[in-house]
Amino acid sequence: MTVQKTSADLYQDYTARMQQIADVRNSVSILGWDQETYLPEKGAEFRGRQITTLSTISHELSTSPALGDLLQELKSRQDLDDVQRRNVELSAEDFEKQRKYPSSFVAELSTASNAAYHAWIKSRKEKDFSVFEPLLAKMVELKKKEADILGYTGHPYDALLNEYEKGADVSMLDAIFRDVRQSLHPLLQQIALQTPPDKKFLNRLYPKDQQWQFGIDILKAMGYDFGAGRQDVSEHPFTTSFNPLDVRVTTRIDEQDLGNMTWSCIHEGGHALYEQGLPVEQYGLPCGEAASLGIHESQSRLWENNVGRSLIFWQKHYGHLQGLFRANLQAVPIMDFYKAINQVQPSLIRTEADELTYHFHIMIRYEIEKGLIGGDLQTKDLRDIWNQYYLDFLNVKVTDDMHGVLQDIHWSHGAFGYFPTYSLGSFYAAQFFSAARKQITGLDSAIADGRYNGLLLWLRDNIHRHGRYYTSNELCEKVTGEKLNFKHFMAYAQEKYGKMYNLGV
Amino acid sequence: MTVQKTSADLYQDYTARMQQIADVRNSVSILGWDQETYLPEKGAEFRGRQITTLSTISHELSTSPALGDLLQELKSRQDLDDVQRRNVELSAEDFEKQRKYPSSFVAELSTASNAAYHAWIKSRKEKDFSVFEPLLAKMVELKKKEADILGYTGHPYDALLNEYEKGADVSMLDAIFRDVRQSLHPLLQQIALQTPPDKKFLNRLYPKDQQWQFGIDILKAMGYDFGAGRQDVSEHPFTTSFNPLDVRVTTRIDEQDLGNMTWSCIHEGGHALYEQGLPVEQYGLPCGEAASLGIHESQSRLWENNVGRSLIFWQKHYGHLQGLFRANLQAVPIMDFYKAINQVQPSLIRTEADELTYHFHIMIRYEIEKGLIGGDLQTKDLRDIWNQYYLDFLNVKVTDDMHGVLQDIHWSHGAFGYFPTYSLGSFYAAQFFSAARKQITGLDSAIADGRYNGLLLWLRDNIHRHGRYYTSNELCEKVTGEKLNFKHFMAYAQEKYGKMYNLGV
Repeated sequence: MTVQKTSADLYQDYTARMQQIADVRNSVSILGWDQETYLPEKGAEFRGRQITTLSTISHELSTSPALGDLLQELKSRQDLDDVQRRNVELSAEDFEKQRKYPSSFVAELSTASNAAYHAWIKSRKEKDFSVFEPLLAKMVELKKKEADILGYTGHPYDALLNEYEKGADVSMLDAIFRDVRQSLHPLLQQIALQTPPDKKFLNRLYPKDQQWQFGIDILKAMGYDFGAGRQDVSEHPFTTSFNPLDVRVTTRIDEQDLGNMTWSCIHEGGHALYEQGLPVEQYGLPCGEAASLGIHESQSRLWENNVGRSLIFWQKHYGHLQGLFRANLQAVPIMDFYKAINQVQPSLIRTEADELTYHFHIMIRYEIEKGLIGGDLQTKDLRDIWNQYYLDFLNVKVTDDMHGVLQDIHWSHGAFGYFPTYSLGSFYAAQFFSAARKQITGLDSAIADGRYNGLLLWLRDNIHRHGRYYTSNELCEKVTGEKLNFKHFMAYAQEKYGKMYNLGV
Repeated sequence: MTVQKTSADLYQDYTARMQQIADVRNSVSILGWDQETYLPEKGAEFRGRQITTLSTISHELSTSPALGDLLQELKSRQDLDDVQRRNVELSAEDFEKQRKYPSSFVAELSTASNAAYHAWIKSRKEKDFSVFEPLLAKMVELKKKEADILGYTGHPYDALLNEYEKGADVSMLDAIFRDVRQSLHPLLQQIALQTPPDKKFLNRLYPKDQQWQFGIDILKAMGYDFGAGRQDVSEHPFTTSFNPLDVRVTTRIDEQDLGNMTWSCIHEGGHALYEQGLPVEQYGLPCGEAASLGIHESQSRLWENNVGRSLIFWQKHYGHLQGLFRANLQAVPIMDFYKAINQVQPSLIRTEADELTYHFHIMIRYEIEKGLIGGDLQTKDLRDIWNQYYLDFLNVKVTDDMHGVLQDIHWSHGAFGYFPTYSLGSFYAAQFFSAARKQITGLDSAIADGRYNGLLLWLRDNIHRHGRYYTSNELCEKVTGEKLNFKHFMAYAQEKYGKMYNLGV
């Protein structure tokens, strides 16, 4: 006689399995954090194999038939509550997706990606795209295959986009980037006619220790909990979470560039506040995870741009900054500082771009990825296409491949479909921030006063606490009353730069 | 038709399995290192569960029937080389031992140990042994059961001793501690008649940064490779290794006590040199592991005591130290410094004891453990027995349980049989060092000159590179020509303290 297990028992089994997987996956993240911060140089090779071993174990646990059976059984149960049902539904989706990949394909992709990464490094050293090109071609071939494995109804690129931002597809992104070209481009042209601000003072000597202290102060002011996190230094700033009670950020300090540390602190701080705000009781389960990459990026961009690059933000903090770097900033009025940190200037490097031209960098990558995966573009033509796009959309001439088609690491890892989430994040951020300003009484004056608690609680309540319960689209509609709409970003840009330059837009 | 696998193939399977287990176990160590150095306070609970999950996975892999079968098959193969045969033999031994534990017993021990640890904390807070006593009684009961599970031929305590130091047993330790009482005790009595050195200057203000720098300088001088390791700060100093190319030490700095940092650096540095010297190509296999706890401790003690507390060592480094702490040390002649760091003074706390009285602290614990596991002593009488022993052997009166029977964490973890390895380590160290002085031409003058490379190479060649290939006993005999013999420690002590105090011994 088989005694049927209760749904509560089954759900507990499921939770235990998911939390075990989370423990292993988070251990990989801890090893990764250590790798980027404190690992002695000779330890790199062994660290690589330790991470591979744990990742393999995590993959095996995530695709075990026993978990699959459990999820099937739980899906048939009618007595789960809403959050439980949603967790099971999402886990089953993740499980099915994981199971789609033949292990031979995973191995092939891993090998090709490793080779492509090293070719990319070499290619950059030699400043010559042609070293990387054949390996990139292989990656594109494999990513097309992956699109077939995952399946799609419209464009094959949709399958890859969906991996990073569920629900995003070519028709949605085509429309958004058309808006970018049609609305943002004219604003850029207007700004280009203005006298550019002087920003040389941002590149004077800013000693490390004071920069570090300023970053910590800003993170504390934002509400980042140092009891449940820490900041360290790494070559590339990042945020990593091992659970909501241990969310770490890193920064990079360039003594000749105040902006490097400042924007990385606020940006990573925004990511970290999201992770610290995820529901801890949902540890290991989908509702304890971030909604999507785009929503994650919206949290970093909202703090970095909508808050951190605003005039009212610096009304609070500029005095402190001047006090720390008296020789550099005492003679610089706040309006000059504000204009300098918001200079709009088409450039070659995405990661150094201002908040407006940035989206043309992303659009270019989007068009290229779509073309490669759709078969309309070939990697051998990529350098020319890249350079032409930069000339057409940003009016800048690419000087060499390092500052052109070789600048991003993403394609060498096979991360096709990732770039658009950066723009989506900014656009979500503008829409969320606009809603917050309507819904939170006195938000502007709170920010001018350095009080971010109201904003943080609003983000916690409207976004963070839901985890993956809602998709990006659902969440956006629930919080702002409408689907993602580029006009909010445009309105933000027009208001800000219109005022700054008296454009009368 | 079954095709028989070649021994080479089987050995490769075995290696792959062992290295996978090592990756998981070393990941646990990385999580543990982070826990003691950088973990944000709120992250402690999740870290606990992440460590438990990985430990469970490691245990499952270590006891998998497939590994057992593989080891059985390999043991029957005649075409393995010496090191391969030894690896298989030791792995099979480890495997059999692991399999002896019923999982119900492991769970019971883990629960009891957790409860005992918390009771020990509480007991210390209340300075009252009776809070801890019933939980200690439970631990003793379980450790007796463990001795039965493991099996023994002589005393049941032998089974537990063997867990920490293979080959150590009651008859060997009874003989050694009899020597300690008979030979070391008279020397202590002679020293007690001398005027004690002034050591107040060691407790002046020694600023943190300079202490840190001095510690780093000493570690570098010893030959510790900072490219394959690092030093950080933790509450209790320790050494941890993730592989021979990533071996980390920690220290603790007390600005009112120069000794705290100095001795922990040299001691942990000695452990770390051993780990850095293990053969990296044997990663994950027994011959890539330390021979035993006693041998491990011999490496830390040799550097800490035989080298680090010698007059010739400070002939090189005292000038540097005086330069860093001019106000404190300029007026202190080197002989006064040397006598101060070597003051022999019976005391209550093991970890603060000098290198001679230390072994009476260990002997007391040894006698108590032997009595408890053998059934001749009961935990309810432990406080009285402890206090009586301290009066009899060290002539000190225990003031309260915190400074008495509650001072060590070991029993709360169930680590019965561990303490003796501390003394064994010191005695091995003296014997190894005596051999090194005979075998290395000009060792004393090299040390006086700050050149430790000859000594390090000798240790690498004679001890480190062998891993677990030899047992402690075999290794000792191979290196020094005889089994462990207390007379070497005694000779070291008599020579050093005889000279220091003109004892004419």
